[in-house]
Amino acid sequence: MQLARVVGSVVATRKEESITGLKLLLVRPLDDEGRESGNAIVSADAVGAGPDEIVLIAAGSSARQTAATDKRPVDSVIMAIVDSWNVGDKVKYKK
Amino acid sequence: MQLARVVGSVVATRKEESITGLKLLLVRPLDDEGRESGNAIVSADAVGAGPDEIVLIAAGSSARQTAATDKRPVDSVIMAIVDSWNVGDKVKYKK
Amino acid sequence: MQLARVVGSVVATRKEESITGLKLLLVRPLDDEGRESGNAIVSADAVGAGPDEIVLIAAGSSARQTAATDKRPVDSVIMAIVDSWNVGDKVKYKK
Amino acid sequence: MQLARVVGSVVATRKEESITGLKLLLVRPLDDEGRESGNAIVSADAVGAGPDEIVLIAAGSSARQTAATDKRPVDSVIMAIVDSWNVGDKVKYKK
Amino acid sequence: MQLARVVGSVVATRKEESITGLKLLLVRPLDDEGRESGNAIVSADAVGAGPDEIVLIAAGSSARQTAATDKRPVDSVIMAIVDSWNVGDKVKYKK
Repeated sequence: MQLARVVGSVVATRKEESITGLKLLLVRPLDDEGRESGNAIVSADAVGAGPDEIVLIAAGSSARQTAATDKRPVDSVIMAIVDSWNVGDKVKYKK
Repeated sequence: MQLARVVGSVVATRKEESITGLKLLLVRPLDDEGRESGNAIVSADAVGAGPDEIVLIAAGSSARQTAATDKRPVDSVIMAIVDSWNVGDKVKYKK
Repeated sequence: MQLARVVGSVVATRKEESITGLKLLLVRPLDDEGRESGNAIVSADAVGAGPDEIVLIAAGSSARQTAATDKRPVDSVIMAIVDSWNVGDKVKYKK
Repeated sequence: MQLARVVGSVVATRKEESITGLKLLLVRPLDDEGRESGNAIVSADAVGAGPDEIVLIAAGSSARQTAATDKRPVDSVIMAIVDSWNVGDKVKYKK
Repeated sequence: MQLARVVGSVVATRKEESITGLKLLLVRPLDDEGRESGNAIVSADAVGAGPDEIVLIAAGSSARQTAATDKRPVDSVIMAIVDSWNVGDKVKYKK
Protein backbone atom coordinates (compact mmCIF):
# COMPACT_ATOMS: atom_id res chain seq x y z
CA MET A 1 0.00 0.00 0.00
CA GLN A 2 1.00 3.61 -0.31
CA LEU A 3 0.52 6.58 1.94
CA ALA A 4 -1.42 9.28 0.08
CA ARG A 5 -3.25 12.56 0.64
CA VAL A 6 -6.74 13.25 -0.68
CA VAL A 7 -6.40 16.39 -2.82
CA GLY A 8 -9.59 16.49 -4.87
CA SER A 9 -12.37 14.59 -6.57
CA VAL A 10 -13.52 13.55 -10.03
CA VAL A 11 -17.04 13.70 -11.49
CA ALA A 12 -17.98 11.32 -14.30
CA THR A 13 -21.58 10.74 -15.33
CA ARG A 14 -20.94 8.58 -18.41
CA LYS A 15 -19.24 5.46 -17.13
CA GLU A 16 -19.34 1.71 -16.72
CA GLU A 17 -22.67 1.04 -15.07
CA SER A 18 -21.11 -1.03 -12.28
CA ILE A 19 -19.25 1.94 -10.83
CA THR A 20 -22.36 4.08 -10.35
CA GLY A 21 -22.35 5.43 -6.82
CA LEU A 22 -18.63 4.98 -6.25
CA LYS A 23 -16.89 8.10 -4.95
CA LEU A 24 -13.76 8.78 -7.02
CA LEU A 25 -11.10 10.82 -5.22
CA LEU A 26 -7.89 12.31 -6.48
CA VAL A 27 -4.96 11.37 -4.25
CA ARG A 28 -1.25 12.13 -4.29
CA PRO A 29 1.17 9.47 -3.00
CA LEU A 30 3.42 10.48 -0.07
CA ASP A 31 6.88 9.33 0.95
CA ASP A 32 7.52 8.36 4.57
CA GLU A 33 8.38 11.99 5.44
CA GLY A 34 4.92 13.03 4.26
CA ARG A 35 6.18 14.73 1.08
CA GLU A 36 4.17 14.34 -2.11
CA SER A 37 5.91 11.94 -4.41
CA GLY A 38 4.74 10.82 -7.84
CA ASN A 39 1.72 11.53 -9.99
CA ALA A 40 -1.86 11.90 -8.79
CA ILE A 41 -4.02 8.77 -8.88
CA VAL A 42 -7.81 8.48 -9.03
CA SER A 43 -8.86 6.10 -6.26
CA ALA A 44 -12.25 4.65 -5.32
CA ASP A 45 -13.21 5.52 -1.75
CA ALA A 46 -14.19 2.51 0.40
CA VAL A 47 -13.94 4.18 3.81
CA GLY A 48 -15.52 7.65 3.61
CA ALA A 49 -12.35 9.74 3.31
CA GLY A 50 -12.59 13.52 3.31
CA PRO A 51 -10.59 16.35 1.74
CA ASP A 52 -6.93 16.55 2.86
CA GLU A 53 -7.10 13.33 4.83
CA ILE A 54 -4.08 11.02 4.86
CA VAL A 55 -5.07 7.58 3.63
CA LEU A 56 -3.74 4.22 2.51
CA ILE A 57 -4.36 3.12 -1.06
CA ALA A 58 -4.11 -0.40 -2.48
CA ALA A 59 -3.55 -1.04 -6.19
CA GLY A 60 -4.31 -3.68 -8.80
CA SER A 61 -6.61 -6.64 -8.19
CA SER A 62 -6.33 -5.94 -4.43
CA ALA A 63 -8.30 -2.75 -5.06
CA ARG A 64 -11.32 -4.94 -5.78
CA GLN A 65 -11.28 -6.73 -2.40
CA THR A 66 -13.79 -4.41 -0.71
CA ALA A 67 -17.60 -4.47 -0.69
CA ALA A 68 -17.64 -1.16 -2.59
CA THR A 69 -15.29 -2.27 -5.38
CA ASP A 70 -15.90 -6.01 -5.81
CA LYS A 71 -15.90 -7.01 -9.51
CA ARG A 72 -15.73 -3.38 -10.60
CA PRO A 73 -13.20 -1.95 -13.07
CA VAL A 74 -11.20 0.01 -10.50
CA ASP A 75 -7.46 -0.43 -9.93
CA SER A 76 -6.98 1.75 -6.86
CA VAL A 77 -8.93 1.90 -3.60
CA ILE A 78 -8.70 3.92 -0.40
CA MET A 79 -8.93 1.17 2.20
CA ALA A 80 -7.89 2.98 5.40
CA ILE A 81 -7.62 6.44 6.93
CA VAL A 82 -4.27 6.96 8.63
CA ASP A 83 -4.18 8.07 12.29
CA SER A 84 -0.41 8.20 12.55
CA TRP A 85 2.81 6.71 11.32
CA ASN A 86 6.32 6.55 12.68
CA VAL A 87 9.78 5.97 11.27
CA GLY A 88 11.94 4.46 14.00
CA ASP A 89 11.14 6.38 17.20
CA LYS A 90 9.88 9.49 15.44
CA VAL A 91 6.21 10.15 14.86
CA LYS A 92 6.10 11.52 11.32
CA TYR A 93 2.37 12.17 11.22
CA LYS A 94 -0.42 12.34 13.77
CA LYS A 95 -3.96 13.25 12.84
CA MET B 1 -7.22 4.93 -12.18
CA GLN B 2 -5.52 7.60 -14.18
CA LEU B 3 -6.79 10.71 -15.89
CA ALA B 4 -6.02 10.54 -19.62
CA ARG B 5 -6.83 12.25 -22.89
CA VAL B 6 -7.90 10.34 -26.01
CA VAL B 7 -5.39 11.31 -28.71
CA GLY B 8 -5.87 8.73 -31.45
CA SER B 9 -6.80 5.20 -32.38
CA VAL B 10 -5.21 1.93 -33.48
CA VAL B 11 -6.32 -0.42 -36.27
CA ALA B 12 -5.39 -4.09 -36.08
CA THR B 13 -7.05 -6.72 -38.25
CA ARG B 14 -4.87 -9.70 -37.32
CA LYS B 15 -5.46 -10.26 -33.62
CA GLU B 16 -6.69 -12.57 -30.91
CA GLU B 17 -10.18 -13.51 -32.01
CA SER B 18 -11.73 -12.55 -28.67
CA ILE B 19 -10.93 -8.87 -29.14
CA THR B 20 -12.76 -8.55 -32.45
CA GLY B 21 -15.06 -5.54 -32.28
CA LEU B 22 -13.23 -3.83 -29.43
CA LYS B 23 -12.36 -0.19 -30.12
CA LEU B 24 -8.70 0.45 -29.30
CA LEU B 25 -7.87 4.05 -28.50
CA LEU B 26 -4.56 5.75 -27.92
CA VAL B 27 -4.57 7.75 -24.69
CA ARG B 28 -2.03 9.90 -22.89
CA PRO B 29 -2.06 9.99 -19.07
CA LEU B 30 -2.57 13.41 -17.45
CA ASP B 31 -1.40 14.81 -14.14
CA ASP B 32 -3.90 16.60 -11.89
CA GLU B 33 -3.15 19.92 -13.63
CA GLY B 34 -4.23 18.36 -16.92
CA ARG B 35 -0.69 18.17 -18.36
CA GLU B 36 0.30 15.12 -20.35
CA SER B 37 2.56 12.92 -18.28
CA GLY B 38 4.08 9.63 -19.31
CA ASN B 39 3.93 7.44 -22.41
CA ALA B 40 0.87 6.81 -24.57
CA ILE B 41 -1.16 3.69 -23.75
CA VAL B 42 -3.52 1.71 -25.97
CA SER B 43 -6.78 1.29 -24.07
CA ALA B 44 -9.96 -0.63 -24.88
CA ASP B 45 -13.00 1.64 -24.96
CA ALA B 46 -15.89 0.47 -22.77
CA VAL B 47 -17.87 3.72 -22.70
CA GLY B 48 -17.93 5.21 -26.22
CA ALA B 49 -15.21 7.84 -25.79
CA GLY B 50 -14.47 10.25 -28.64
CA PRO B 51 -11.40 12.11 -29.86
CA ASP B 52 -9.86 14.56 -27.34
CA GLU B 53 -12.18 13.49 -24.54
CA ILE B 54 -10.84 13.33 -21.00
CA VAL B 55 -11.35 9.86 -19.58
CA LEU B 56 -10.46 7.55 -16.73
CA ILE B 57 -8.45 4.42 -17.47
CA ALA B 58 -8.07 1.34 -15.27
CA ALA B 59 -5.12 -1.04 -15.65
CA GLY B 60 -4.29 -4.69 -15.10
CA SER B 61 -6.88 -7.34 -14.25
CA SER B 62 -9.31 -4.53 -13.37
CA ALA B 63 -9.36 -3.66 -17.07
CA ARG B 64 -11.25 -6.91 -17.65
CA GLN B 65 -14.13 -6.07 -15.28
CA THR B 66 -16.41 -4.66 -17.97
CA ALA B 67 -18.86 -6.39 -20.32
CA ALA B 68 -16.72 -5.32 -23.30
CA THR B 69 -13.44 -6.67 -21.93
CA ASP B 70 -14.38 -9.69 -19.78
CA LYS B 71 -11.87 -12.55 -20.26
CA ARG B 72 -10.11 -10.68 -23.07
CA PRO B 73 -6.34 -10.07 -23.27
CA VAL B 74 -6.52 -6.33 -22.57
CA ASP B 75 -4.70 -4.61 -19.73
CA SER B 76 -6.16 -1.11 -20.00
CA VAL B 77 -9.77 0.04 -20.28
CA ILE B 78 -11.49 3.39 -20.57
CA MET B 79 -14.22 3.00 -17.94
CA ALA B 80 -15.50 6.57 -17.54
CA ILE B 81 -15.66 9.91 -19.34
CA VAL B 82 -14.68 12.76 -17.05
CA ASP B 83 -17.07 15.71 -16.61
CA SER B 84 -14.85 17.66 -14.25
CA TRP B 85 -12.26 17.38 -11.53
CA ASN B 86 -11.08 19.68 -8.79
CA VAL B 87 -7.98 20.00 -6.63
CA GLY B 88 -8.96 21.59 -3.32
CA ASP B 89 -11.41 24.40 -4.18
CA LYS B 90 -10.18 24.86 -7.73
CA VAL B 91 -11.92 23.31 -10.69
CA LYS B 92 -9.05 22.06 -12.86
CA TYR B 93 -11.19 20.77 -15.71
CA LYS B 94 -14.80 21.14 -16.76
CA LYS B 95 -16.15 19.61 -19.95
CA MET C 1 -1.64 -2.26 -24.08
CA GLN C 2 1.54 -0.92 -25.55
CA LEU C 3 2.70 -0.42 -29.09
CA ALA C 4 5.91 -2.40 -29.68
CA ARG C 5 8.23 -3.57 -32.43
CA VAL C 6 9.41 -7.18 -32.74
CA VAL C 7 13.22 -7.00 -32.70
CA GLY C 8 14.34 -10.58 -32.07
CA SER C 9 13.62 -13.90 -30.45
CA VAL C 10 14.67 -16.03 -27.49
CA VAL C 11 15.51 -19.74 -27.41
CA ALA C 12 15.09 -21.67 -24.16
CA THR C 13 15.05 -25.46 -24.03
CA ARG C 14 15.05 -25.90 -20.24
CA LYS C 15 11.81 -24.35 -19.06
CA GLU C 16 8.49 -24.82 -17.33
CA GLU C 17 6.88 -27.69 -19.22
CA SER C 18 3.65 -25.76 -19.81
CA ILE C 19 5.35 -23.21 -22.06
CA THR C 20 6.72 -25.80 -24.49
CA GLY C 21 5.83 -24.73 -28.03
CA LEU C 22 5.28 -21.06 -27.17
CA LYS C 23 7.20 -18.66 -29.41
CA LEU C 24 9.04 -16.10 -27.30
CA LEU C 25 9.81 -12.84 -29.07
CA LEU C 26 11.87 -9.88 -28.00
CA VAL C 27 9.93 -6.62 -28.40
CA ARG C 28 10.72 -2.99 -27.75
CA PRO C 29 7.90 -0.67 -26.60
CA LEU C 30 7.17 2.35 -28.84
CA ASP C 31 5.78 5.78 -28.03
CA ASP C 32 2.95 7.17 -30.16
CA GLU C 33 5.48 8.71 -32.60
CA GLY C 34 6.87 5.21 -33.23
CA ARG C 35 10.11 5.83 -31.31
CA GLU C 36 11.52 3.06 -29.16
CA SER C 37 10.90 3.83 -25.53
CA GLY C 38 11.88 1.71 -22.55
CA ASN C 39 13.56 -1.65 -22.10
CA ALA C 40 13.07 -4.74 -24.27
CA ILE C 41 10.47 -7.24 -23.08
CA VAL C 42 10.15 -10.95 -23.86
CA SER C 43 6.59 -11.57 -25.02
CA ALA C 44 4.73 -14.77 -25.92
CA ASP C 45 3.40 -14.66 -29.48
CA ALA C 46 -0.32 -15.46 -29.78
CA VAL C 47 -0.87 -14.12 -33.31
CA GLY C 48 2.04 -15.25 -35.52
CA ALA C 49 4.04 -12.02 -35.54
CA GLY C 50 7.17 -11.75 -37.68
CA PRO C 51 10.45 -9.85 -37.44
CA ASP C 52 10.14 -6.04 -37.40
CA GLU C 53 6.35 -6.12 -37.22
CA ILE C 54 4.55 -3.52 -35.12
CA VAL C 55 2.37 -5.23 -32.54
CA LEU C 56 0.28 -4.68 -29.44
CA ILE C 57 1.36 -6.31 -26.19
CA ALA C 58 -0.73 -6.88 -23.08
CA ALA C 59 0.88 -7.37 -19.66
CA GLY C 60 0.14 -9.10 -16.37
CA SER C 61 -2.73 -11.54 -15.86
CA SER C 62 -4.27 -10.23 -19.09
CA ALA C 63 -1.36 -11.87 -20.93
CA ARG C 64 -2.88 -15.22 -19.99
CA GLN C 65 -6.27 -14.56 -21.64
CA THR C 66 -5.40 -16.26 -24.97
CA ALA C 67 -5.60 -19.89 -26.01
CA ALA C 68 -1.80 -19.99 -26.37
CA THR C 69 -1.05 -18.60 -22.92
CA ASP C 70 -3.93 -19.76 -20.68
CA LYS C 71 -2.64 -20.83 -17.21
CA ARG C 72 0.98 -20.46 -18.33
CA PRO C 73 3.64 -18.47 -16.45
CA VAL C 74 3.88 -15.66 -18.99
CA ASP C 75 3.33 -11.99 -18.14
CA SER C 76 3.42 -10.47 -21.63
CA VAL C 77 1.61 -11.49 -24.82
CA ILE C 78 1.50 -10.21 -28.37
CA MET C 79 -2.26 -10.13 -28.97
CA ALA C 80 -2.53 -8.09 -32.19
CA ILE C 81 -0.53 -6.98 -35.22
CA VAL C 82 -0.95 -3.28 -35.90
CA ASP C 83 -2.09 -2.13 -39.35
CA SER C 84 -1.99 1.58 -38.57
CA TRP C 85 -2.42 4.17 -35.87
CA ASN C 86 -3.16 7.85 -35.87
CA VAL C 87 -2.72 10.74 -33.45
CA GLY C 88 -5.41 13.33 -34.16
CA ASP C 89 -5.68 13.59 -37.97
CA LYS C 90 -2.16 12.35 -38.64
CA VAL C 91 -1.45 8.78 -39.58
CA LYS C 92 1.67 7.94 -37.59
CA TYR C 93 2.13 4.43 -38.92
CA LYS C 94 0.71 2.41 -41.80
CA LYS C 95 1.86 -1.09 -42.57
CA MET D 1 10.05 -10.24 -4.39
CA GLN D 2 12.10 -7.38 -3.09
CA LEU D 3 14.56 -7.08 -0.25
CA ALA D 4 13.37 -4.43 2.19
CA ARG D 5 14.04 -3.04 5.67
CA VAL D 6 11.29 -2.47 8.25
CA VAL D 7 11.56 1.23 9.17
CA GLY D 8 8.30 1.99 10.95
CA SER D 9 4.63 1.28 11.30
CA VAL D 10 1.24 2.78 10.46
CA VAL D 11 -1.83 3.11 12.69
CA ALA D 12 -5.27 3.28 11.08
CA THR D 13 -8.47 2.80 13.05
CA ARG D 14 -10.98 3.70 10.34
CA LYS D 15 -10.50 1.09 7.62
CA GLU D 16 -11.98 -1.73 5.61
CA GLU D 17 -13.35 -4.12 8.21
CA SER D 18 -11.53 -7.11 6.71
CA ILE D 19 -8.10 -5.71 7.55
CA THR D 20 -8.81 -5.34 11.26
CA GLY D 21 -5.96 -6.95 13.20
CA LEU D 22 -3.45 -6.80 10.34
CA LYS D 23 -0.12 -5.23 11.33
CA LEU D 24 0.85 -2.58 8.77
CA LEU D 25 4.58 -1.88 8.59
CA LEU D 26 6.49 0.75 6.69
CA VAL D 27 9.32 -0.79 4.68
CA ARG D 28 11.99 0.62 2.36
CA PRO D 29 13.14 -1.50 -0.61
CA LEU D 30 16.86 -2.38 -0.72
CA ASP D 31 19.18 -3.06 -3.65
CA ASP D 32 21.45 -6.13 -3.53
CA GLU D 33 24.16 -4.12 -1.74
CA GLY D 34 21.69 -3.40 1.05
CA ARG D 35 21.25 0.27 0.14
CA GLU D 36 17.80 1.82 0.37
CA SER D 37 16.34 2.23 -3.08
CA GLY D 38 12.96 3.65 -3.97
CA ASN D 39 9.99 4.93 -2.01
CA ALA D 40 8.67 3.51 1.26
CA ILE D 41 5.83 0.99 0.97
CA VAL D 42 3.20 0.01 3.55
CA SER D 43 3.22 -3.78 3.79
CA ALA D 44 1.02 -6.21 5.73
CA ASP D 45 3.07 -8.36 8.10
CA ALA D 46 2.44 -12.12 7.72
CA VAL D 47 5.51 -13.36 9.62
CA GLY D 48 5.95 -11.27 12.78
CA ALA D 49 8.69 -8.92 11.57
CA GLY D 50 10.24 -6.45 14.00
CA PRO D 51 11.78 -2.99 13.71
CA ASP D 52 14.89 -2.79 11.47
CA GLU D 53 14.58 -6.39 10.30
CA ILE D 54 15.47 -7.24 6.72
CA VAL D 55 12.52 -8.91 5.01
CA LEU D 56 11.14 -10.04 1.68
CA ILE D 57 8.01 -8.40 0.34
CA ALA D 58 5.70 -9.70 -2.39
CA ALA D 59 3.42 -7.37 -4.36
CA GLY D 60 0.11 -7.47 -6.18
CA SER D 61 -2.29 -10.39 -6.04
CA SER D 62 0.55 -12.52 -4.66
CA ALA D 63 0.36 -10.41 -1.50
CA ARG D 64 -3.01 -12.07 -0.79
CA GLN D 65 -1.66 -15.65 -0.81
CA THR D 66 -1.14 -15.86 2.96
CA ALA D 67 -3.55 -16.79 5.75
CA ALA D 68 -3.28 -13.25 7.14
CA THR D 69 -4.05 -11.48 3.87
CA ASP D 70 -6.39 -13.81 1.94
CA LYS D 71 -9.18 -11.85 0.19
CA ARG D 72 -8.11 -8.63 1.87
CA PRO D 73 -7.43 -5.33 0.05
CA VAL D 74 -3.67 -5.38 0.55
CA ASP D 75 -1.16 -5.22 -2.29
CA SER D 76 2.09 -5.83 -0.37
CA VAL D 77 2.97 -8.49 2.19
CA ILE D 78 6.04 -9.34 4.25
CA MET D 79 6.30 -13.08 3.61
CA ALA D 80 9.80 -13.89 4.93
CA ILE D 81 12.47 -12.59 7.27
CA VAL D 82 15.91 -12.67 5.64
CA ASP D 83 18.76 -14.49 7.40
CA SER D 84 21.38 -13.73 4.77
CA TRP D 85 21.97 -13.11 1.11
CA ASN D 86 24.98 -13.36 -1.13
CA VAL D 87 26.01 -11.96 -4.50
CA GLY D 88 28.44 -14.39 -6.13
CA ASP D 89 30.81 -15.56 -3.36
CA LYS D 90 30.29 -12.52 -1.15
CA VAL D 91 27.91 -12.53 1.76
CA LYS D 92 26.22 -9.14 1.53
CA TYR D 93 24.09 -9.49 4.65
CA LYS D 94 24.00 -11.82 7.60
CA LYS D 95 21.59 -11.38 10.48
CA MET E 1 9.03 -11.64 -19.29
CA GLN E 2 12.44 -10.17 -18.69
CA LEU E 3 15.91 -11.41 -19.43
CA ALA E 4 17.91 -11.64 -16.18
CA ARG E 5 21.13 -13.02 -14.76
CA VAL E 6 21.27 -15.09 -11.57
CA VAL E 7 23.69 -13.23 -9.29
CA GLY E 8 23.11 -14.71 -5.86
CA SER E 9 20.69 -16.30 -3.44
CA VAL E 10 18.67 -15.49 -0.33
CA VAL E 11 18.29 -17.55 2.86
CA ALA E 12 15.17 -17.09 4.97
CA THR E 13 14.17 -19.55 7.68
CA ARG E 14 11.27 -17.60 9.20
CA LYS E 15 8.70 -17.33 6.44
CA GLU E 16 5.21 -18.12 5.22
CA GLU E 17 4.93 -21.87 5.65
CA SER E 18 3.78 -22.39 2.05
CA ILE E 19 7.10 -21.26 0.61
CA THR E 20 9.17 -23.81 2.54
CA GLY E 21 11.47 -25.58 0.10
CA LEU E 22 11.34 -22.89 -2.57
CA LYS E 23 14.76 -21.76 -3.77
CA LEU E 24 14.95 -17.96 -3.75
CA LEU E 25 17.51 -16.50 -6.14
CA LEU E 26 18.71 -12.96 -6.61
CA VAL E 27 18.53 -11.90 -10.26
CA ARG E 28 19.39 -8.72 -12.13
CA PRO E 29 17.30 -7.77 -15.18
CA LEU E 30 19.19 -7.41 -18.49
CA ASP E 31 18.50 -5.27 -21.54
CA ASP E 32 18.61 -6.88 -25.00
CA GLU E 33 22.36 -6.17 -25.25
CA GLY E 34 22.89 -8.24 -22.11
CA ARG E 35 23.68 -5.23 -19.89
CA GLU E 36 22.33 -5.17 -16.35
CA SER E 37 19.44 -2.78 -16.14
CA GLY E 38 17.36 -1.99 -13.08
CA ASN E 39 17.31 -3.20 -9.50
CA ALA E 40 17.89 -6.76 -8.31
CA ILE E 41 14.79 -8.91 -7.79
CA VAL E 42 14.31 -11.99 -5.61
CA SER E 43 12.78 -14.69 -7.80
CA ALA E 44 11.51 -18.21 -6.99
CA ASP E 45 13.34 -20.84 -9.04
CA ALA E 46 11.01 -23.21 -10.92
CA VAL E 47 13.58 -24.67 -13.31
CA GLY E 48 16.79 -25.43 -11.41
CA ALA E 49 18.82 -22.38 -12.41
CA GLY E 50 22.46 -22.07 -11.32
CA PRO E 51 24.80 -19.19 -10.51
CA ASP E 52 25.44 -16.77 -13.39
CA GLU E 53 22.89 -18.41 -15.67
CA ILE E 54 20.80 -16.23 -17.98
CA VAL E 55 17.13 -16.82 -17.34
CA LEU E 56 13.64 -15.54 -18.05
CA ILE E 57 11.55 -14.22 -15.18
CA ALA E 58 7.79 -13.70 -15.11
CA ALA E 59 6.15 -11.27 -12.67
CA GLY E 60 2.86 -10.81 -10.87
CA SER E 61 0.11 -13.42 -10.78
CA SER E 62 1.83 -15.17 -13.71
CA ALA E 63 4.65 -16.04 -11.30
CA ARG E 64 2.21 -18.41 -9.57
CA GLN E 65 1.45 -20.48 -12.71
CA THR E 66 4.07 -23.17 -12.01
CA ALA E 67 3.89 -26.32 -9.90
CA ALA E 68 6.52 -24.88 -7.55
CA THR E 69 4.76 -21.57 -6.97
CA ASP E 70 1.02 -22.32 -7.25
CA LYS E 71 -0.99 -20.39 -4.58
CA ARG E 72 2.21 -19.19 -2.92
CA PRO E 73 2.97 -15.55 -2.03
CA VAL E 74 5.64 -15.06 -4.69
CA ASP E 75 5.52 -12.37 -7.36
CA SER E 76 8.51 -13.38 -9.49
CA VAL E 77 9.48 -16.77 -10.91
CA ILE E 78 12.35 -18.07 -13.03
CA MET E 79 10.42 -20.06 -15.65
CA ALA E 80 13.11 -20.73 -18.29
CA ILE E 81 16.86 -20.89 -18.76
CA VAL E 82 17.96 -19.01 -21.87
CA ASP E 83 20.05 -20.81 -24.50
CA SER E 84 20.40 -17.84 -26.82
CA TRP E 85 18.74 -14.70 -28.06
CA ASN E 86 19.11 -12.57 -31.13
CA VAL E 87 18.27 -9.01 -32.15
CA GLY E 88 17.69 -8.92 -35.90
CA ASP E 89 20.40 -11.11 -37.47
CA LYS E 90 22.83 -10.77 -34.58
CA VAL E 91 23.16 -13.39 -31.89
CA LYS E 92 23.46 -11.35 -28.70
CA TYR E 93 23.94 -14.29 -26.34
CA LYS E 94 24.70 -17.97 -26.74
CA LYS E 95 25.18 -20.26 -23.77
